[in-house]
Amino acid sequence: MGSLVAQSIHRSVRSLAEKNEDFAHQVLRDESLIDQMEIRIDDLASSLIARESPVARDMRFVVTAIKINTDLERMGDLAVNIVERSLSLMHQPEVAGTVDFTEIASLVESMVLGCLEAFVQRDAAKARKILETDDEVDKMRNAISQQMIALMHSDASYIRRALDNIFIARSLERIADHATNVAEDVIFMVQGIDVRHPAARA
Amino acid sequence: MGSLVAQSIHRSVRSLAEKNEDFAHQVLRDESLIDQMEIRIDDLASSLIARESPVARDMRFVVTAIKINTDLERMGDLAVNIVERSLSLMHQPEVAGTVDFTEIASLVESMVLGCLEAFVQRDAAKARKILETDDEVDKMRNAISQQMIALMHSDASYIRRALDNIFIARSLERIADHATNVAEDVIFMVQGIDVRHPAARA
Repeated sequence: MGSLVAQSIHRSVRSLAEKNEDFAHQVLRDESLIDQMEIRIDDLASSLIARESPVARDMRFVVTAIKINTDLERMGDLAVNIVERSLSLMHQPEVAGTVDFTEIASLVESMVLGCLEAFVQRDAAKARKILETDDEVDKMRNAISQQMIALMHSDASYIRRALDNIFIARSLERIADHATNVAEDVIFMVQGIDVRHPAARA
Repeated sequence: MGSLVAQSIHRSVRSLAEKNEDFAHQVLRDESLIDQMEIRIDDLASSLIARESPVARDMRFVVTAIKINTDLERMGDLAVNIVERSLSLMHQPEVAGTVDFTEIASLVESMVLGCLEAFVQRDAAKARKILETDDEVDKMRNAISQQMIALMHSDASYIRRALDNIFIARSLERIADHATNVAEDVIFMVQGIDVRHPAARA
């Protein structure tokens, strides 16, 4: 499920960069596969708990799997949001001084792959690295939004395209948020430490 | 936790409708309380599983609580997003033919209260009613977005305010999505039927 979701994100970004409809349609087709996997994994986790009554570390693993499952499915939904906007953009003339998603997209993709690796390898140090990247993504998203707002101001005919781009940046940022959630869950699973909401614990 | 989140949503909507800064700041203050509750509920659920090894129906209850916990915390975050936009709007001149959030907000609030009631009362019929409302919210959100896009086209000086309104409508829609997730989890908990992703099961 993790690789399929990572693949959908990768394809959504490539459909955007290369104006490639095939990648976009592949993402739309794979959405229901991802949905099926979510259901199967939840079933599996529930019946595993019921049958085996796992404790401590094993129980933490299963609960983490249930949480990560939800985050992965939502990342898949966000990839669908991106291709919907990407398909919309393909049918409109190019935006002047085109916005470049390369940097933010490759950072977000590395976070997604990183959090999956951290989960599979039960590697808390790798998970912590992902938490550090999240602010960077927020900054990039803000920069794109500001660029697009300026563009809308300069020429009203760009409004729809600029909005598409703002929502794409927003979807990428939300994928990064889900990767951060997964990383936090992995740290909890491995070390038993809850690192969410540091402000709430101060 | 459920009432505090429902209250934050209510206050975020009122801060917007009444240009009330006090409600907005209350929502910002309560965010960390909600975060603390999320951590405590997860701890409680995990230790309950570890100590009691619940099975079948009881186990489904605890797993559902863990899932709902995440949805509630994110609803709280979305209420914060709304007040941030609401505070931004308070410091800008009024938008011509102001957008009216009354209808969408009251529908979203009723979904949030409804899904919490369905959980507490283990009432699958009540949960199913919420699923039916979700499309309605999507339609209202689209109408507001279209209205705001038209406004931006008519006058570039409205762009920032119109964007604030688009994101408020989007946040309300996402709160409704989380309420829908909770309702689906309640149906699963009560009836053992998974109603997510009907297309994936066809």
